Amino acid sequence: MRDNFELLAQAVPEMVAAGRLLTGEAAGDDYGADECLTIASTQPAAVAIPESTAEVSALMAACETHGIAVTGRGSGTGLSGAATPGPDSVVVSFERMNQVLEIDTDNHVAVVQPGLRLNELDEVLAGHGLVYPVYPGEYSASLGGNVNTNAGGMRAVKYGVTRHHVLGLEMVLPGGEVIRTGGKFVKSSTGYDLTQIVVGSEGTLGLVTEVTLKLHPRLAHQATVLAPFSSLGEVTSAVPRIIDSGIDPLILEYIDLMTMSATKNHVGLELGVPDEIEQQALAYLVVMLESSHEDRLEADTETLAIQLAELGALDVYVLPAHAAEQLISAREQAFWISKANNADDIVDVVVPRAQVPEFMERVGALANEYEAWIVGCGHAGDGNVHLGVFCGADPQRRAAILTDLFASAASLGGVISAEHGIGGAKRDYYLALEDPTKIALMRRIKAAFDPSGIMNPETIF
Amino acid sequence: MRDNFELLAQAVPEMVAAGRLLTGEAAGDDYGADECLTIASTQPAAVAIPESTAEVSALMAACETHGIAVTGRGSGTGLSGAATPGPDSVVVSFERMNQVLEIDTDNHVAVVQPGLRLNELDEVLAGHGLVYPVYPGEYSASLGGNVNTNAGGMRAVKYGVTRHHVLGLEMVLPGGEVIRTGGKFVKSSTGYDLTQIVVGSEGTLGLVTEVTLKLHPRLAHQATVLAPFSSLGEVTSAVPRIIDSGIDPLILEYIDLMTMSATKNHVGLELGVPDEIEQQALAYLVVMLESSHEDRLEADTETLAIQLAELGALDVYVLPAHAAEQLISAREQAFWISKANNADDIVDVVVPRAQVPEFMERVGALANEYEAWIVGCGHAGDGNVHLGVFCGADPQRRAAILTDLFASAASLGGVISAEHGIGGAKRDYYLALEDPTKIALMRRIKAAFDPSGIMNPETIF
Repeated sequence: MRDNFELLAQAVPEMVAAGRLLTGEAAGDDYGADECLTIASTQPAAVAIPESTAEVSALMAACETHGIAVTGRGSGTGLSGAATPGPDSVVVSFERMNQVLEIDTDNHVAVVQPGLRLNELDEVLAGHGLVYPVYPGEYSASLGGNVNTNAGGMRAVKYGVTRHHVLGLEMVLPGGEVIRTGGKFVKSSTGYDLTQIVVGSEGTLGLVTEVTLKLHPRLAHQATVLAPFSSLGEVTSAVPRIIDSGIDPLILEYIDLMTMSATKNHVGLELGVPDEIEQQALAYLVVMLESSHEDRLEADTETLAIQLAELGALDVYVLPAHAAEQLISAREQAFWISKANNADDIVDVVVPRAQVPEFMERVGALANEYEAWIVGCGHAGDGNVHLGVFCGADPQRRAAILTDLFASAASLGGVISAEHGIGGAKRDYYLALEDPTKIALMRRIKAAFDPSGIMNPETIF
Repeated sequence: MRDNFELLAQAVPEMVAAGRLLTGEAAGDDYGADECLTIASTQPAAVAIPESTAEVSALMAACETHGIAVTGRGSGTGLSGAATPGPDSVVVSFERMNQVLEIDTDNHVAVVQPGLRLNELDEVLAGHGLVYPVYPGEYSASLGGNVNTNAGGMRAVKYGVTRHHVLGLEMVLPGGEVIRTGGKFVKSSTGYDLTQIVVGSEGTLGLVTEVTLKLHPRLAHQATVLAPFSSLGEVTSAVPRIIDSGIDPLILEYIDLMTMSATKNHVGLELGVPDEIEQQALAYLVVMLESSHEDRLEADTETLAIQLAELGALDVYVLPAHAAEQLISAREQAFWISKANNADDIVDVVVPRAQVPEFMERVGALANEYEAWIVGCGHAGDGNVHLGVFCGADPQRRAAILTDLFASAASLGGVISAEHGIGGAKRDYYLALEDPTKIALMRRIKAAFDPSGIMNPETIF
């Protein structure tokens, strides 16, 4: 809507002059969507590209005054449509607020702008011997996006998710007020934790303009073990016993047969598993260990291999570094493999990790019932199951399958999304499945931050 | 107020009959306060001792209907007066909702009732080889109280605080509605994280009736190293380098001279530090390590000792298990030592850990300026400084000192309370120091949960 652009242009004329408030053609298709498979791109009324918190504040004040909807945007790698604007919205893109503001090696924190990408941060941290250990599959994702979706990834079994590493925020509320939450410390019992309510809120409460992140020492040595099993149940039963051992695995992934085969075909991966084992293997467990001591890593790898054999693994392979890297990276690209194979939808439910086999049985039954193809792999360490759903283009059929899938997860104590978020893509399922008392409470919390309802109004609710 | 008791008695007559809704003498002094030094005990209108979530719900519905204020109570070990009722309030004591509901050794979680005490949980977990690693100083504290204050303690440098271990809650909202949040998993990006906003909310949002806690394997071996330094600055400078080493310390505490001396006198501790070292030592660093492998622990202890010497320690002592236990336990009882010495107030500020020496310099200057005695020790690993303030009985003088102390912490990027909470004791300081925009936002969030304002109305705000 041209009007909204003009209202904003009057509020921040210097941004127009600088070519950082765009509309029409200039706003381009790229700002209209993220990587969500099921939500179409929508060209917004305007795209704002602020360079400072003050500019974000001026934009937000104008949006609140004129009731203009706001969609924040990092690098657009989200999978749930949370960065998809409405046609009357302004997209606030953080592409130019992408700096590392500080690496504090005494307090072990990084202070960064929301447009910074994970791979850029990692490059800087490597030079300090430090790591920000949250590794969702997509390293070009922005930190601001990660904060807003509470991004997870493979290393959550050891390090937790984004939530556990965000120590503080600067954010702009819808009226333009700037607040700072938390700080360079882990402990606080001083008022409500505003940081934590914003993490995972998918841009519905305000715009994050600065993030203080907890860092860890970067351990030098890693080893990867691949263990084929004859059933998923055995993989899942092995997981808690590996954790009990105190070996503190960095990654605990399971890969099912079809995903392993697609992964191998996709990247031409050669893992050295003999044919006779491969024929019996119905599920693979991948365990990655890390240590600051090479000798301890070797000893732990050996102990793990023995334990895996005792737990029923058909065989155990310590992967050469190159193959391990390829396997993990292929696993991280499972989404792209699904997409390349024309998946109709993807889900990332979480259930208690011991309930994964029961959940997968129900998934199998659902696939049969609907004559669909539902394949996946998952973070065995934390019950996070990624599935590609291949069911044909009929949206009603897809909706029926997803409704049943999510209801199955919920009946096992799980929820719809472990790490992708609800966005617009899973909103209707969420509203149908969630306790209405909680939805009403969340709406009141949203109103506490955003009384005019301008923040990403099509998202979550 | 007798009226409020009668209104409640009509709503839950079966609790009266069972002797679990009390008033007058029967409500006793014990329910009128926690361990806060500065807030007097107040006898409430009624004390309710529910045995089920349904009873809590019935109580809350009646309280909302009649506008009766509610104060939840665990074991009453809080230090900020958050369990102190008003004279018209009902205290809901969770003393009979104190069961371990489930130890799930596959998902590594415990499901517990809020009245369960930390030492009771620990006893159960020891039998499973598991640990709930949050160890605030007081082991008779209840889990419900720990959730509401976001309790921390010494092991936060390795394991984080209560917040990082609460995976889900059952809670009763002020209208009596029961909601469940989270679940037996670490990852979720499914609506706002209601769990995390309740953790640390000091009973102002609702009553927690069940907690799902993350557990860890219980590592078998521990070692404790004591290193005297000639200045606090050297202690603080050593801390980040110890963390960089990847040794992952369980505890990193500093103890100042006066606290060490009081501790030694109080428990008759003999640490084997020769007189000539003791005379030069102005600050002590205590490092505790843990491991599942005894040989690795020994190697790490040796590496640590060498590193400490390089970092300027006057000497390094590996403490025998018995002495280590005594020292840690004495350190945990610092509050009781302060109390026994008639401290006029205690504070538990947090600043970024590298800013501890600067903060302590300001504390020293303040002590001089006010001719007060301010001593303390702290969690060097996370910038959490515990101070006993000895300034005489004049409340205005005490308030002036605390105001300056908190302002100093804030100017260094810290906040008022790391782990005790604001309660009623630190409320006025908090309201004076905090950004009014954030206070207003928090009040709106409180109203989203508690529109009638009945939940612990004198607390935080």
